[in-house]
Amino acid sequence: MKLDQSGLEILDRDECRALLSRAAIGRIVFTHQALPAVQPVNFILSRGDIVFRTSGTSRLATAAADTIVAFEIDDFDTAARTGWSVVVVGRARRATDPREIAALAALPLESWAPGTRDTFIRIHPELITGRRIGDGALAS
Amino acid sequence: MKLDQSGLEILDRDECRALLSRAAIGRIVFTHQALPAVQPVNFILSRGDIVFRTSGTSRLATAAADTIVAFEIDDFDTAARTGWSVVVVGRARRATDPREIAALAALPLESWAPGTRDTFIRIHPELITGRRIGDGALAS
Repeated sequence: MKLDQSGLEILDRDECRALLSRAAIGRIVFTHQALPAVQPVNFILSRGDIVFRTSGTSRLATAAADTIVAFEIDDFDTAARTGWSVVVVGRARRATDPREIAALAALPLESWAPGTRDTFIRIHPELITGRRIGDGALAS
Repeated sequence: MKLDQSGLEILDRDECRALLSRAAIGRIVFTHQALPAVQPVNFILSRGDIVFRTSGTSRLATAAADTIVAFEIDDFDTAARTGWSVVVVGRARRATDPREIAALAALPLESWAPGTRDTFIRIHPELITGRRIGDGALAS
């Protein structure tokens, strides 16, 4: 087990990818009007990219298109004080090619939020880091 | 029930504060080496401020001292597709006054992470926003 300087277990890239493939909700971190912003989204992992839907007029569609963002997933057990988190950093891009949009629309990805969500944002991970705290039982 | 333009229920400030007072884990959003960064921390609400511990040499202690950050808590039920999130934006400040540090050290706030965590960061909320999706059962 490899530890970081804070004493947390370092998750390797394969472990991080496995956790990403099983998670349903993540938090996208971006800048909005020069302030730090964060918003939960339901997502799917497709060919290694994080994909989520939004409406074309949303803050996310505007602020998170063609820019570097962070994306975080985690799961913690408050009583046991255990858990893990995975953070991805990469470029977010709005899908514009009709064939790409058709392919993304065929994914099993339905937005939880009401209304039309016909804009797809994908994040291609450049950096993936993960940490586990406690006994790691949550990661299994 | 007030809805935003995405059709999500808007939580009022009192509801957001109540959720903050009950949560144990939140995610601090900041900038590190010109990139968006996000890290989960266990925290406590003290006199309306978000307070957490870190080590004096951590990335957080350096990057999140005296700067505007976002702080997010949420809880989602993947099966029911319900949940809520609260986002705070405000200035993060490292406690330096010995009396303030003594007062913060007396709070029931123990870091989950191993090692010495004798640096206290507090975030004074300037903006608090919250949203709920689905039937809202999780917020009770």
